[in-house]
Amino acid sequence: MSDTYVLVHGAWHTGREIEPAAEHLRQLGHTVLCPTLAGNRAGDDRSHTGLNDAAQSLCDFLHEHDLHDVRLAGHSYGGMVISRAYDMAPERIRRLVYVNAFVPLPGECLNDMVPPVYVGLFDSIAAAGNGAVVLPLPIWREAFINDADLVLATSAYEQLNPHPYKTFTDKISLKQPIHEWPVGKSYVNCQQDTALPHSLPWHPRLSERLGLFRLVECPGSHEVWFTDPATIARAIAVAGRD
Amino acid sequence: MSDTYVLVHGAWHTGREIEPAAEHLRQLGHTVLCPTLAGNRAGDDRSHTGLNDAAQSLCDFLHEHDLHDVRLAGHSYGGMVISRAYDMAPERIRRLVYVNAFVPLPGECLNDMVPPVYVGLFDSIAAAGNGAVVLPLPIWREAFINDADLVLATSAYEQLNPHPYKTFTDKISLKQPIHEWPVGKSYVNCQQDTALPHSLPWHPRLSERLGLFRLVECPGSHEVWFTDPATIARAIAVAGRD
Amino acid sequence: MSDTYVLVHGAWHTGREIEPAAEHLRQLGHTVLCPTLAGNRAGDDRSHTGLNDAAQSLCDFLHEHDLHDVRLAGHSYGGMVISRAYDMAPERIRRLVYVNAFVPLPGECLNDMVPPVYVGLFDSIAAAGNGAVVLPLPIWREAFINDADLVLATSAYEQLNPHPYKTFTDKISLKQPIHEWPVGKSYVNCQQDTALPHSLPWHPRLSERLGLFRLVECPGSHEVWFTDPATIARAIAVAGRD
Repeated sequence: MSDTYVLVHGAWHTGREIEPAAEHLRQLGHTVLCPTLAGNRAGDDRSHTGLNDAAQSLCDFLHEHDLHDVRLAGHSYGGMVISRAYDMAPERIRRLVYVNAFVPLPGECLNDMVPPVYVGLFDSIAAAGNGAVVLPLPIWREAFINDADLVLATSAYEQLNPHPYKTFTDKISLKQPIHEWPVGKSYVNCQQDTALPHSLPWHPRLSERLGLFRLVECPGSHEVWFTDPATIARAIAVAGRD
Repeated sequence: MSDTYVLVHGAWHTGREIEPAAEHLRQLGHTVLCPTLAGNRAGDDRSHTGLNDAAQSLCDFLHEHDLHDVRLAGHSYGGMVISRAYDMAPERIRRLVYVNAFVPLPGECLNDMVPPVYVGLFDSIAAAGNGAVVLPLPIWREAFINDADLVLATSAYEQLNPHPYKTFTDKISLKQPIHEWPVGKSYVNCQQDTALPHSLPWHPRLSERLGLFRLVECPGSHEVWFTDPATIARAIAVAGRD
Repeated sequence: MSDTYVLVHGAWHTGREIEPAAEHLRQLGHTVLCPTLAGNRAGDDRSHTGLNDAAQSLCDFLHEHDLHDVRLAGHSYGGMVISRAYDMAPERIRRLVYVNAFVPLPGECLNDMVPPVYVGLFDSIAAAGNGAVVLPLPIWREAFINDADLVLATSAYEQLNPHPYKTFTDKISLKQPIHEWPVGKSYVNCQQDTALPHSLPWHPRLSERLGLFRLVECPGSHEVWFTDPATIARAIAVAGRD
């Protein structure tokens, strides 16, 4: 069956870096689109773009392409964005797929779910960067893309873009907690993802905030988009189907 | 080496649904039997059948077939039944294999190991169902058979039978705690099994009640019997061997 | 790229038992050495050899072979030894790889990270064994080498040697806590390793003491050296590369 997927990238990324996974998902017969959110496009204002701006740009994208019955997948920070987008415009969305993604309670910001040591680091980087945050290479290499060799880790790092930090500190507005939403929900957990430490993990700590949800797991780091796009595509297809 | 396995189904099942896994286990050279417990047979009384009735029917089965050196595997609710059966008649059993199964402390009932939200749900379903409990399809599809496509999830659901709820609330009688039993014990953990939430998991929460035990893991949901019978058969063979 | 690996065995082992994995690692293009630590050699004094003696013998080995840019991997007890060795002679070491290994805080001994029931067992065995501790076969078979058949479990057991218990009770001297060390660090977690119970696990409980580190996981028990040397070799190569 041909389904419609929209894949929403994480912080520091654009839609282009997840295109290899999208292409594998298309080979499974699906229609797949990978928009780039407001705040991560070339020339976007990194100092003032917030979570609502990013979510609005996603809703606009769904509207402009007149998409229906969308399986909306968000990676990492993208979990904040798809959550806010569903709150704003649920009618186009058939299932939400969180891919090692943040699942906020009403009123939480992304930083509320992150170890304090990361928040302190981001604070200082953003203060020095005019509101834009970048990820230090050693953290990227060891904790985000631990399954890559150094060549791939480095080339992937060079594709990242400075991220508008306001999107990490804006508290999300949700009319209902997510576990009450009457929509299908799935969580894809990449098992070696240590972007959040496993003592404060993605799953089940954040996944179970979805209420009734479907768990899918696969091997891989937080950046499996680069290291094994075929595997993450298959996992998303299993998570996104009816 | 040819060993004798008896596979004990979980709630809502009969021996027939685990026959595909049994057949794979036979292809590995073993003798395998899949009895259906009292309470889950066509025409059984769903209102009054309790845990002792189910365990007695298993002991009767072992006796009638004059089985010895049995590797006795129980799935889910089947963990209650094999535990009670070993307490009643240990002499025929060489090793106990718990397959994402409940491991009770003396005096516990199955519901004591389940999240309160499930207990409340089961209470209300059983009250409306004359003592029989059925599993709502959305929970089955998302949390029990998350690795199936919708066609398989639905066809498997149609094979289930109403379960006598008294077996979930009867407190088990055990002369000794299980960790003291002088018999080989194994635990098979299907890694994507979310029938119990991973914040309140099968393993290690329940498995470690076995004391010294052998851990075997494989990919799959709680209903891997339907989705990957070859894999669960191999895992049981590794768990059940000497 | 050809890198230099030194693989440091765990308690009860010598370098010889990890040679099959070393050979796989050599086939990936690397130089690999497997010294046997002081205390585990034939004829070594099991009553008085302590952690410093073992670590000194490792430093001597690195010096005698004039090794540089070493990827130093330690298994289990070997984590204590590579930690002490780095503290003594960091200049030859490029990366530390802990393979389901102990990661001590300054002043801790190995026994401080082990369940009290094991400490009590080891105490009584060592008291009866003139300071040498051996592992009871049932624990070895079920909790250490759960993925082996009985023939392999038994033949592997016969290769073990009595271990100097003082190395488990000597408190480690470290000038700095490990998480502050300016060297690359990786943790390899064999997923079915129940030598430590999963309620008190190797990862993330001990791994996260490394601070920023690279996680690599693979299937297998604590004794994957015997049961799947190719898999552990590949995992070490991914953990040890730059």
